[in-house]
Amino acid sequence: MNDSLRQAAEFLMSHDNYDILTHAYPDGDTLGSGYALCRVLRGLGKKARVIKTNLPKDFVFLAEGLEEQSFETQTVVSVDVADEKLLGSNKEKYLGRIDLCIDHHEISRVEAPVKCVDACASSNCEILFELFSEMGIRLDVDTAAALYTGISTDTGCFKYSNTTSKTLRIAAELLDLGVDSPAINKVMFDTKSKKKIMLEREAYGSLVYCAGGRCAIIAVTLETKRRLDVNDDELEGLASIPRQIEGVEIGITIREKEPDVFKISVRANERLVNAAQFCARFGGGGHAAASGCMIKGSLEEVTAKLRAAAEELL
Amino acid sequence: MNDSLRQAAEFLMSHDNYDILTHAYPDGDTLGSGYALCRVLRGLGKKARVIKTNLPKDFVFLAEGLEEQSFETQTVVSVDVADEKLLGSNKEKYLGRIDLCIDHHEISRVEAPVKCVDACASSNCEILFELFSEMGIRLDVDTAAALYTGISTDTGCFKYSNTTSKTLRIAAELLDLGVDSPAINKVMFDTKSKKKIMLEREAYGSLVYCAGGRCAIIAVTLETKRRLDVNDDELEGLASIPRQIEGVEIGITIREKEPDVFKISVRANERLVNAAQFCARFGGGGHAAASGCMIKGSLEEVTAKLRAAAEELL
Repeated sequence: MNDSLRQAAEFLMSHDNYDILTHAYPDGDTLGSGYALCRVLRGLGKKARVIKTNLPKDFVFLAEGLEEQSFETQTVVSVDVADEKLLGSNKEKYLGRIDLCIDHHEISRVEAPVKCVDACASSNCEILFELFSEMGIRLDVDTAAALYTGISTDTGCFKYSNTTSKTLRIAAELLDLGVDSPAINKVMFDTKSKKKIMLEREAYGSLVYCAGGRCAIIAVTLETKRRLDVNDDELEGLASIPRQIEGVEIGITIREKEPDVFKISVRANERLVNAAQFCARFGGGGHAAASGCMIKGSLEEVTAKLRAAAEELL
Repeated sequence: MNDSLRQAAEFLMSHDNYDILTHAYPDGDTLGSGYALCRVLRGLGKKARVIKTNLPKDFVFLAEGLEEQSFETQTVVSVDVADEKLLGSNKEKYLGRIDLCIDHHEISRVEAPVKCVDACASSNCEILFELFSEMGIRLDVDTAAALYTGISTDTGCFKYSNTTSKTLRIAAELLDLGVDSPAINKVMFDTKSKKKIMLEREAYGSLVYCAGGRCAIIAVTLETKRRLDVNDDELEGLASIPRQIEGVEIGITIREKEPDVFKISVRANERLVNAAQFCARFGGGGHAAASGCMIKGSLEEVTAKLRAAAEELL
């Protein structure tokens, strides 16, 4: 890792006019990385901007005080982007043009002359913290807050197994730089919109168990989405509900994307069941702990197929 | 703090036959402290046991491998006990008999010849970590896990404002000792019983807003408790639901304790509203962020009183 940090540090010091690419499912880590890097580069007197598909309101604070800059792009850096496909609407413009890829995904598919990838890092922001240290940068509080946001959101506030002692020590250094961590965490973890509350109530209402309580299934239909006026973004996070239930080894969330087309998210206690294997039965895939697939049919048919698969597997 | 740590360390090294008192609302910090101290004292060849009112099943792992010891009590230490009243059914036996009080509450009322109190510590377990360092103890993984449990639960997994950079660095050291933090955090933060899920669904169903959405109220009646077969312990945690809703400055949870007698829990965004002031109107009190009171009447009457008070205050 040290070599690739050094190489990335030298690259960043010796280039200018940066477009920083974030992925199209904008989360705290890709946006935190993008804005932290943008601030550091500007602090070095360089031109830089963050390229994004959108900036959800909870993350607007990351961009505060950064004015628009107009310049001709000379250098393209991707942060937390595991695959160029994930650039969304920016894909075509930047395909094959990435000069430096900074990433923490196990399978990091972006092709770039310089790659700085560490799959052991909790988050992309953790890598950036080390990279900035390598560059000898003194972080200001806004950059520190952006890095903290990425680390905290990607680790579930230090709850998940990607949290290492190094992660915690980096977070400690960021707090020492003045980051208002309780304020950030309140927004990231302890705030739900009124619509989200309505949605969770509906999801709870749809909850069914099977396989003797070892599988739990919730469903959100197009009708519910229309009635509550929620979009797909607002459905994120629902998938954690069935998985949290005591005794549940496999938690399934069914979301109707188009009439009779359902997106299935599966979360499993990976020490007991493999979610990727489960989803492979339906042509999907992913990780042992979190996978997905698409199934067509009526909600009843889809639910019945999932129940049958769960009963068989468990 | 250093003097009182040194004094407490000398005390612990020079006594024996310990009863370690925990408070009667058994949480991760008091139980984590109790079992960590018990393990350390036994590791020094001393006799020690944890005195508790009960050991909820999520915390049973803290006591694993610790066999019963029979001995005549010579020394009494309280951990995380802010007031002797909080000893519950053990109060009478130990009143006035505490030799050493280790605590992190701002108002720490236990009278003892030796007090080791640090209100700046995130948790009592944070103080114990420092105390054990002062004593030159090499922590085993079970003791480290007990300390981690206390720190993690009292800080909401490092989310709350009591989390300092020191807290995070201590947690890092505990991880380096081999603590399985994801497993502990899964139980403490990401597991809900099936009953709890039913209860939350009911609570969501009862949700009403007032004061233009700045106040949210949920209610659980005796009828609901009977129907779902839940006890008061299982109602803990509900109070965080209304407070989490976006735009809500004051979140109120109404729980029927006896027919027409309601326990009210108020959680406020203390930068905007004072929960203690709110509860004082009904003869209750507490902190600016979290307070409580009792109100008699029908659910409709009680709700109407609370709504009126919220409308007036906001």
